[in-house]
Amino acid sequence: MLEMFKKAKEAKTKLKELSEMKKDEALMNIAFGIQNNAKKIIDANNQDLKNAKKLLEEGEITKAIYDRLKLDERKLAIMIKGIHDIIRLKSPTDKVEWRRELDSDLILEKISSPIGVIGVIFEARPDVIVQITSLTIKTSNVVILKGGREAQNTNKAFFDTIISSIKNVEGFPLEAVNLIHTREDVANMLKMNEYIDLIIPRGSNSLVKYIQENTKIPVLGHASGICHIFVDESAKKDEVKNIVLDSKAQYPSACNSVETLLIHKNYPHKDDLIQFLKENGIEIVENPKNYETEYSDKILSVKIVDSLEDAINHINKYGSNHTDAILTENKKNAEEFLSSVDSANVFHNVSTRFSDGFRYGFGAEVGISTNKTLARGPVGMDGLCTYKYIIRGKNQIVADYVSGQKKFTHKNI
Amino acid sequence: MLEMFKKAKEAKTKLKELSEMKKDEALMNIAFGIQNNAKKIIDANNQDLKNAKKLLEEGEITKAIYDRLKLDERKLAIMIKGIHDIIRLKSPTDKVEWRRELDSDLILEKISSPIGVIGVIFEARPDVIVQITSLTIKTSNVVILKGGREAQNTNKAFFDTIISSIKNVEGFPLEAVNLIHTREDVANMLKMNEYIDLIIPRGSNSLVKYIQENTKIPVLGHASGICHIFVDESAKKDEVKNIVLDSKAQYPSACNSVETLLIHKNYPHKDDLIQFLKENGIEIVENPKNYETEYSDKILSVKIVDSLEDAINHINKYGSNHTDAILTENKKNAEEFLSSVDSANVFHNVSTRFSDGFRYGFGAEVGISTNKTLARGPVGMDGLCTYKYIIRGKNQIVADYVSGQKKFTHKNI
Repeated sequence: MLEMFKKAKEAKTKLKELSEMKKDEALMNIAFGIQNNAKKIIDANNQDLKNAKKLLEEGEITKAIYDRLKLDERKLAIMIKGIHDIIRLKSPTDKVEWRRELDSDLILEKISSPIGVIGVIFEARPDVIVQITSLTIKTSNVVILKGGREAQNTNKAFFDTIISSIKNVEGFPLEAVNLIHTREDVANMLKMNEYIDLIIPRGSNSLVKYIQENTKIPVLGHASGICHIFVDESAKKDEVKNIVLDSKAQYPSACNSVETLLIHKNYPHKDDLIQFLKENGIEIVENPKNYETEYSDKILSVKIVDSLEDAINHINKYGSNHTDAILTENKKNAEEFLSSVDSANVFHNVSTRFSDGFRYGFGAEVGISTNKTLARGPVGMDGLCTYKYIIRGKNQIVADYVSGQKKFTHKNI
Repeated sequence: MLEMFKKAKEAKTKLKELSEMKKDEALMNIAFGIQNNAKKIIDANNQDLKNAKKLLEEGEITKAIYDRLKLDERKLAIMIKGIHDIIRLKSPTDKVEWRRELDSDLILEKISSPIGVIGVIFEARPDVIVQITSLTIKTSNVVILKGGREAQNTNKAFFDTIISSIKNVEGFPLEAVNLIHTREDVANMLKMNEYIDLIIPRGSNSLVKYIQENTKIPVLGHASGICHIFVDESAKKDEVKNIVLDSKAQYPSACNSVETLLIHKNYPHKDDLIQFLKENGIEIVENPKNYETEYSDKILSVKIVDSLEDAINHINKYGSNHTDAILTENKKNAEEFLSSVDSANVFHNVSTRFSDGFRYGFGAEVGISTNKTLARGPVGMDGLCTYKYIIRGKNQIVADYVSGQKKFTHKNI
């Protein structure tokens, strides 16, 4: 085991020396590999589904986990398309961010470079293994993967496909992609601060908390997603209904689904909105005993607030700095909200469900981070800043993009 | 105490709403305030020096700490100039890093924003309080300062000057700058993860380690600075002598001074170099029992390596990812070193002592970070990159800039 971590660390240099073309070749091979091994992968998945069915009947896992486990030809096709999306993007490694003359013949550059060895621990969804591996290969990072026990046959089939695909790329270090299997393996990995640069847990709050509390390696991610929508005085009636419903119900267990609805006391359609949400199966909790519960279900806390300022204070106090939105026709209020809410993603007039790597045009994501500290090297003013993502929209909801009714343009302007 | 942390958190929003002009006004007032209170500050410093003299005689503190404590009119003038340098720079907060159309009327922006509340714990040097406060005000961050006990009168005099200077700026929240006093205050602060976003320890390895082990708040900084110079086969004789001496002796207790010298086995001037260093008071340790000692003194580990690859592997294994340099006339080797060494600062043909916020043109620095994880929000490829600073030079040494013989141009090209 220690041998694997050592070799993973050594693979960093070899991987970094490969050209981007070679890495794209590896990704291309993986895409072909998945296509060619589709039957083998789906057979393995069927084995996992058979085992999971028992666990479902015994109440050991939820229906949601069972559903997420299932792969079919369509899902494989989406995964293959995802790999091609990543190939098409330019790798951000070795990009010169800026260049400065300190003196004649004394040139300083700030350039991007890989993080190193990344351990990723994920639960049921087996497509994660392909997404993460594609991103780490493209960015010259070494990865150590640990999937959920429920998906172990599927994960093994994907891993074997990945390894046999990259074997054919000259000079590609096979030690750059690793799969570990047991809880003991994870416990071991968390102690390897000498070899591993970053841990990314993807899954339940309890998984993330367990990892944060049991390692000295930096952890990327978030334990909870307490997202808010503030409905301002001037917000439009139908648009509000549409956006709040999408934010809560489009995928209630997602981390970017809304948990608390803050409504301005002078919003005239309050009762109508509540009625509408109830009719659509949302359970409304007025004056909950706390505002820090992530329901991950069709349940929504509702609070009436006196002002924009109250809403901002509530969010900065109870939120998890994940994703928060204001619905308003008042531009000044919108800008104040976007500026003052201290979260990684802050939106105007769109669903909270937009905070997602695919939707942002990143090709894929390894997770959503609520970390705030970004600096390396001498830390001046730039190092005292973090960044946030802002969306200014026109009442768009995620459901329309999931259904295919609308399509992203992802055009830099 | 809890009240102070709460108010500090609340001050974030107020500070963020102030214009950059107002913040520059505050900085300008602080610069004037220091000038006007010069006598009071130097009197306070004399009190500290008197107390420190006793501690020095009793062997409680070192001569180096005593020397760093001392302020005079010249040092105050440099501090005032530093504030003006920061005023002249553009604040990086609220800068749009990029803007992307996701769909029509659905615009995504990545913008920089303040980190929030920052706790800074520093040792003897009292000028740090002014540097840090200037940087945090300019970047809209709230700061909680804790200085060394030896400098307590000086720190109090600076703090009073800062508060009375910003009092005259309309709308400036005084709770944005705070001073705490005792070890118990620090222990309290380390528990305040609800209110504090980042801790920056500046000082000895033991201080940094103590803090890293006693808080759940993210810590920016580094415990040790094991910096290397690799002298390649083709490196020039006199330039090597000059650079290695500057890197070790110009300020031996600095974190960016060199600790290990790696020499290529075919470098023809090895004996001459060692002889030169010894003549200049450097103690040479060949084959040390470990390569992870930060001497912080005129002592240098020396190791002969077989190749560039060996040198890179040694640095990535034993280094602290801080600052490492190659001295060579071989451009290909230089580029391989700059690309493969996994450190925050990697240099070609210059002294390791250049890794510093002032020298990089950042106006000041809050410290040097060896952190590698930078991502916030959905983490795609960019989030899997960190960055490094590269200098390509022509045998410059820091001594020439410290003496004023050479001056930085700091010109973006």
